Amino acid sequence: MKHQSGRHFLQIPGPTNVPERVLRAIDSATVDHRGPEFQAMSKEVLAGLKQVFRTKSPVVIFPASGTGAWEAALVNTLSPGDRVLMVETGHFATLWHAMAKRLALEPVFIPGDWRHGADPAAIEAKLAEDKGHAIRSVMVVHNETSTGVTSRIGEVRKAIDRAKHPALFMVDTISSLASIDYRHDEWGVDVTVAGSQKGLMLPPGLSFNAVSDKALAASKSAKLPRSYWNWEEMIAANRDGWFPYTPATNLLYGLRVALKMLLEEEGLDNVFRRHDRHAEATRRAVRAWGLEILCANPAEYSSALTAVLMPEGHSEIRFREIVLDRYNLSLGSGLTKLRDKVFRIGHLGDFNDLMLLGTLAGVEMGLAAAGVPHQKGGVQAAMDYLAGGEAARGAAKARAA
Amino acid sequence: MKHQSGRHFLQIPGPTNVPERVLRAIDSATVDHRGPEFQAMSKEVLAGLKQVFRTKSPVVIFPASGTGAWEAALVNTLSPGDRVLMVETGHFATLWHAMAKRLALEPVFIPGDWRHGADPAAIEAKLAEDKGHAIRSVMVVHNETSTGVTSRIGEVRKAIDRAKHPALFMVDTISSLASIDYRHDEWGVDVTVAGSQKGLMLPPGLSFNAVSDKALAASKSAKLPRSYWNWEEMIAANRDGWFPYTPATNLLYGLRVALKMLLEEEGLDNVFRRHDRHAEATRRAVRAWGLEILCANPAEYSSALTAVLMPEGHSEIRFREIVLDRYNLSLGSGLTKLRDKVFRIGHLGDFNDLMLLGTLAGVEMGLAAAGVPHQKGGVQAAMDYLAGGEAARGAAKARAA
Amino acid sequence: MKHQSGRHFLQIPGPTNVPERVLRAIDSATVDHRGPEFQAMSKEVLAGLKQVFRTKSPVVIFPASGTGAWEAALVNTLSPGDRVLMVETGHFATLWHAMAKRLALEPVFIPGDWRHGADPAAIEAKLAEDKGHAIRSVMVVHNETSTGVTSRIGEVRKAIDRAKHPALFMVDTISSLASIDYRHDEWGVDVTVAGSQKGLMLPPGLSFNAVSDKALAASKSAKLPRSYWNWEEMIAANRDGWFPYTPATNLLYGLRVALKMLLEEEGLDNVFRRHDRHAEATRRAVRAWGLEILCANPAEYSSALTAVLMPEGHSEIRFREIVLDRYNLSLGSGLTKLRDKVFRIGHLGDFNDLMLLGTLAGVEMGLAAAGVPHQKGGVQAAMDYLAGGEAARGAAKARAA
Amino acid sequence: MKHQSGRHFLQIPGPTNVPERVLRAIDSATVDHRGPEFQAMSKEVLAGLKQVFRTKSPVVIFPASGTGAWEAALVNTLSPGDRVLMVETGHFATLWHAMAKRLALEPVFIPGDWRHGADPAAIEAKLAEDKGHAIRSVMVVHNETSTGVTSRIGEVRKAIDRAKHPALFMVDTISSLASIDYRHDEWGVDVTVAGSQKGLMLPPGLSFNAVSDKALAASKSAKLPRSYWNWEEMIAANRDGWFPYTPATNLLYGLRVALKMLLEEEGLDNVFRRHDRHAEATRRAVRAWGLEILCANPAEYSSALTAVLMPEGHSEIRFREIVLDRYNLSLGSGLTKLRDKVFRIGHLGDFNDLMLLGTLAGVEMGLAAAGVPHQKGGVQAAMDYLAGGEAARGAAKARAA
Repeated sequence: MKHQSGRHFLQIPGPTNVPERVLRAIDSATVDHRGPEFQAMSKEVLAGLKQVFRTKSPVVIFPASGTGAWEAALVNTLSPGDRVLMVETGHFATLWHAMAKRLALEPVFIPGDWRHGADPAAIEAKLAEDKGHAIRSVMVVHNETSTGVTSRIGEVRKAIDRAKHPALFMVDTISSLASIDYRHDEWGVDVTVAGSQKGLMLPPGLSFNAVSDKALAASKSAKLPRSYWNWEEMIAANRDGWFPYTPATNLLYGLRVALKMLLEEEGLDNVFRRHDRHAEATRRAVRAWGLEILCANPAEYSSALTAVLMPEGHSEIRFREIVLDRYNLSLGSGLTKLRDKVFRIGHLGDFNDLMLLGTLAGVEMGLAAAGVPHQKGGVQAAMDYLAGGEAARGAAKARAA
Repeated sequence: MKHQSGRHFLQIPGPTNVPERVLRAIDSATVDHRGPEFQAMSKEVLAGLKQVFRTKSPVVIFPASGTGAWEAALVNTLSPGDRVLMVETGHFATLWHAMAKRLALEPVFIPGDWRHGADPAAIEAKLAEDKGHAIRSVMVVHNETSTGVTSRIGEVRKAIDRAKHPALFMVDTISSLASIDYRHDEWGVDVTVAGSQKGLMLPPGLSFNAVSDKALAASKSAKLPRSYWNWEEMIAANRDGWFPYTPATNLLYGLRVALKMLLEEEGLDNVFRRHDRHAEATRRAVRAWGLEILCANPAEYSSALTAVLMPEGHSEIRFREIVLDRYNLSLGSGLTKLRDKVFRIGHLGDFNDLMLLGTLAGVEMGLAAAGVPHQKGGVQAAMDYLAGGEAARGAAKARAA
Repeated sequence: MKHQSGRHFLQIPGPTNVPERVLRAIDSATVDHRGPEFQAMSKEVLAGLKQVFRTKSPVVIFPASGTGAWEAALVNTLSPGDRVLMVETGHFATLWHAMAKRLALEPVFIPGDWRHGADPAAIEAKLAEDKGHAIRSVMVVHNETSTGVTSRIGEVRKAIDRAKHPALFMVDTISSLASIDYRHDEWGVDVTVAGSQKGLMLPPGLSFNAVSDKALAASKSAKLPRSYWNWEEMIAANRDGWFPYTPATNLLYGLRVALKMLLEEEGLDNVFRRHDRHAEATRRAVRAWGLEILCANPAEYSSALTAVLMPEGHSEIRFREIVLDRYNLSLGSGLTKLRDKVFRIGHLGDFNDLMLLGTLAGVEMGLAAAGVPHQKGGVQAAMDYLAGGEAARGAAKARAA
Repeated sequence: MKHQSGRHFLQIPGPTNVPERVLRAIDSATVDHRGPEFQAMSKEVLAGLKQVFRTKSPVVIFPASGTGAWEAALVNTLSPGDRVLMVETGHFATLWHAMAKRLALEPVFIPGDWRHGADPAAIEAKLAEDKGHAIRSVMVVHNETSTGVTSRIGEVRKAIDRAKHPALFMVDTISSLASIDYRHDEWGVDVTVAGSQKGLMLPPGLSFNAVSDKALAASKSAKLPRSYWNWEEMIAANRDGWFPYTPATNLLYGLRVALKMLLEEEGLDNVFRRHDRHAEATRRAVRAWGLEILCANPAEYSSALTAVLMPEGHSEIRFREIVLDRYNLSLGSGLTKLRDKVFRIGHLGDFNDLMLLGTLAGVEMGLAAAGVPHQKGGVQAAMDYLAGGEAARGAAKARAA
């Protein structure tokens, strides 16, 4: 492996940069997960998580990647052959759809162009058609990590309500939680799926379900076989700070510190504003380069990442290799349909202005090194925005959108 | 929380003491799990694991607790309604049995007294009865963490062979792998289940399946729904050092160091000898105290932990609370049937003579503090064994047994 | 290097075992030592140190070993040719004496047998003889790390007072501070010398001077050249949380945590009681082995370490090599006059009952392995004391002594 | 303290950013500094240091800041009243001069304007005047950390040789070692002074003297009192891997890793080239801003830091406060004569292109925020240089200069 001096810039859209305090907390002697010290920590962490999801319902923690929390959402609430309504917003929505099929569900998949979020009107129409209420669940990805496009969850909720449809509502917030404003209770979500390695600023290895009463009720009659993912035992054990099987203790220490940073030190609203601001700066850089943002609808821009279209005939794979090799910067790749067509800049997690500007500088120099046609000035445009009075206004606008 | 000076003695039978080098490796900046540095690490780790399982077959790594690897073993190889043969060796065998039922299997459960390992003759008899080969799998726990009793896996293999039965053979080595001699290939095991937090000296959060060709073949026709646990994609991606979903990167760094320590620095055979020796020393202490070892058959003594019966009328819960409070020592509790009846001394993982003697001293003083009838001299007996010429002989005998 | 599993037992009388929280604090990104975050930390640490020294006077911190703080005490207060009164309590007192000579002072060295502390009466006599007050300073080592003998500092103070002598009083507390009761102000000490790597539970690299007004006044006219060790600039800069040259920033982070543990979590009086108790347990073990404690006067027993005489004809060097090789335990060696004649057991710093019993077990088995004549039963005697009702009484007695 | 997300940018000219591997090595259990494991490490580290200093002579390590190594250079080689020739290149040269006076030496101080390095001709002239060879030593700071001006050490050596003067030659490389090419042996330096917290990428707390035979010979007759800094015992003990008093063990673990990175992984010549390149990029940014570089002679530009003059009437203190508050970036301040007049950008240690561009972006936005007159375009100019073909040529030129 070639020696590269200095800090690596990990600007994929997750796993994100883990704060040193979080890493150091993980680096503590493992304790007895049946002892009182662990119990106290569990209770603290479980309470803090509710605040992050903005819910009063239980949040369960799996020692698993986010993919596991997807599976948990399905197997706890549904039965073989159940119809579910999903929306093709990108690679991850497609993977979730594939999982649903594997687990013997019958998903209806509203097609998409990977440049737009879920269309509330289309969902409403599908639900309105479903007179017999065969559809048991509506499933949407809040922030498509593969495209940098968000779906308007509050609008989707209203669409379901307008259709007066009893389906459950499940939302994947793996790459939005603790980066983009999200409200489990207010938006009437039944199962929120999340993971540790994005806005929560932890390494991968933990994932989450926030579970509404309606979802819990559904789990009573759901027939998909389940054991590891079973909410019931988990929620029962969690009440006293325990887990039904060995939890990932050391990652939980890190979670405790991360929650403290998000909730007490920075404050969630400030966290969201910071992400909005960095996203807007990034988009200005992209426009200055003369490149195209994949997300086609400004109201659906992601504050967690920005996917950028490569000019026709230029390979994002080669471009990212050059950037990694010369500038010690990892960018996100184009996935499946977007393979070799877009690169993704992650600007989420534990991040700040100068890390962003270093990142954008790496992209700008990389474009030159890879011979990708572009104009200079992207970093300058980002700096102008971040430094200028525009920043406040821009952030305000972005949030209003 | 009361202040307790000095190192905590974590002598539950897992999670075990994590070496500082392993913790420090976990405490490294998270990297891109789609980048070349991570890929190189994956390949190294996947190769090392095969040596630990003593197999040439693939070993898959799940970002999950050991319980997840149990589930993976089942859902990859079996179909709803399949009959499986399981043996009630203790709490964990019982949990695995409960999981099989939940997952719509039809387990035959050979009853046990929680003081003996799986009886090869009983298994042979059950298989011999099964003329139609309805039993698809034989499932045994190698080392029952709840009882300190091992099952003789090689003997069980021979029993299956004598019965000329085509069932798969699945073995849980969660608390034996890298502590007690185990041979996936030689013993013809089809799926070996393991976890990170015991002999592998890591925090909890990773689990494993070693998978024979026969198990892989079975997975082609197995009908249990599966996605997260699906071997096929995992093994395909692993070939190039990748994973089908985000792996628990930072725990993998730790695994790399732990494998180096086990395979290169100490050597697996020395690791086993060390565990045998500490187990024998512990049993001598227990006998000196006049207490009874739960394991009834010396040929089935566990080298990973020793469960000790409390004298009638004395509570192990209260005893362990006193030990934790006064001596900063965590011991394992009695589980379900054994609740409040046994305590368990873990002597596995990253451990040495003086850690063991400190542990035994904590037990001996705790017995006094809790008013549990016993004789002094347990620590002395352990020291005599560890220091004496007997140690070599004793270890040799233990292994011959 | 041979592989040794498990935790090393570092039971030399310092450097001591560093708590993981302290190490993890040291393992933080280095900051600007001229910035506000550092300034806040400095003030906190400087205030906490005063409580440990039990003084209202300034405590200065040198980025240096304890040996540097010895030098600082001398060069700040004395002039070439100055007479100072020192007492040969052991190896370190002898080294300090040698340093005084090198720095052009004229020490009077009251001889000692390395088995007793400084004799207040002898000091009084020397001072009484010194009608012209040529002696500028009395210098005593509170706890002789080479012998496990303490000097009664309060008694020495009274002796000086009885002689009505104006000499400064300087005390080395390198291996006693935060382990054995010590009172800079109450005992009228002018310069207290200390280091980070013993009772303060840090790695080596910081050392300290607590400085009385009288010492500061003396520094105005002291003629020994000094620059690095100069108190004046240090104290002036410290007032605002700064240092006159780059401080050892990362060790200071560790100090902050260690002070919190000592002062807030355990409490200094509990820390002292713990050390007393472990020392008494150790002595009981030594006596049970039939070996001789070097310290000849029970009123001068050290609570930080115990030095043990080897039986005639037996080498402590060989004994310690065996102990290190077989039991992964580091013991202190015999120094200069005591070379190959005593070994030292450190029982100070971040320590507890089971760590002590593991240590004593290592000694007892090592004595057997090295063929050193002894009786068994040392560990048992220590356990009996630690577990028994005697413990409370014993500790009380030790402190009354 | 206000919460600041993301990594702090520590771009003072030292302490520098410590690589995580180095911090993690420091975060290891403290060992017995009289044991074989420590001994092996000492030998390795002492050998590696010689390569960094490019010397075959001994290099001694003090548990002390760089200021201590200054003092060691003086007290080991000189006697009270000795004349030494020093050059006022800036704040640190002035501090060293002040130290020499305090230690009873009689320094001749060639005045300077803090914008030029030491003038070889002026030194030659002073030495030529000194027919009686009263001057015992010539002392020069290789890289003035307060000004970003280097002195040409090879040229100074030639000047001394031309004057046929027998004076010792002492050089401070505290902020140049392992950042800027330096050759102890080739340039005939007698004592090289260095510290851990700059190019060696460690926290502060270690400092160094490389010592020629001539310096060692001088130490035999030098009369300044010394004990802690005494080379003789140190070098004698180091021969076998020991130290005469407790070394700063944990920092030495870090040093071992840092040496491996510098010598084996990156290679010293690549390290120097990297620093040259970043310095040139920084200067281009400064010029683009329309600001003035403090260093007046391009042949004396520092590759470790760049000091920048504030426009008349603008406060660097306020500017740096704004930069720290808004951009989480620490810059170096103006010292004494330069107070409130220059700010300093450190670009040394463990560093890379994107860290530099983030830093320069922080400066550029800070200039705007503080209302300091400047042109935009500094970051762009640096990017153009770093990305362009010019980089190779520029680096080559910088090194030829």
